[in-house]
Amino acid sequence: MENTLRMALLFDFYGPLLTERQAHVFQMYFHEDLSLGEVGEELDVSRQAIYDILKRSGTLLEDFESKLGLVAKHQERQRLYDEALALIELCRTADLKDRDQYLTELAETIKQAQRQG
Amino acid sequence: MENTLRMALLFDFYGPLLTERQAHVFQMYFHEDLSLGEVGEELDVSRQAIYDILKRSGTLLEDFESKLGLVAKHQERQRLYDEALALIELCRTADLKDRDQYLTELAETIKQAQRQG
Repeated sequence: MENTLRMALLFDFYGPLLTERQAHVFQMYFHEDLSLGEVGEELDVSRQAIYDILKRSGTLLEDFESKLGLVAKHQERQRLYDEALALIELCRTADLKDRDQYLTELAETIKQAQRQG
Repeated sequence: MENTLRMALLFDFYGPLLTERQAHVFQMYFHEDLSLGEVGEELDVSRQAIYDILKRSGTLLEDFESKLGLVAKHQERQRLYDEALALIELCRTADLKDRDQYLTELAETIKQAQRQG
């Protein structure tokens, strides 16, 4: 369970596909930052049972990502949006010729996002 | 099975979450346009069995969409991209003052896509 950030990101995208119990345990451990023992106490099950649920949930989330790639696509889109916003700022102060060039690049950036779906 | 287009769209997004068999039957029926009987013959099972697999797959796909909403988000993004591309075209021929206004709207459109994730 080393990669907390990765797990939180995967959960953002695929959390609704987990069972209610898996999601509940996941949130207590990763979002409320309770220990395995504390989550176990809360739910009246063993520390080991909580560990197993988290491990199973983590595997499911990674499996969804390997099939749908939503996190990867999201990150690529965000990169394109940042690029587009930077080009818009350049456009504002550029002379006419450069401005046309920036607009062409901007359209290309958006079409790239469009093709990605 | 009336809504072929809807099913094809859902399959584009969630197909990888179906079992291999479900996906195979789905493709034969919706993409290769075989009849229930023809798919059944191909796989050596009854017409009814194929119908059940398709019905089950359709339910699963709609269930994924109700949980993750990828099709709806995709359509909203495409709308924003079209809007952005139209604004870029307006920018090209606008005078300086209008151009600034279009660039501001353009940035807003991209930030809207960005917030959507």
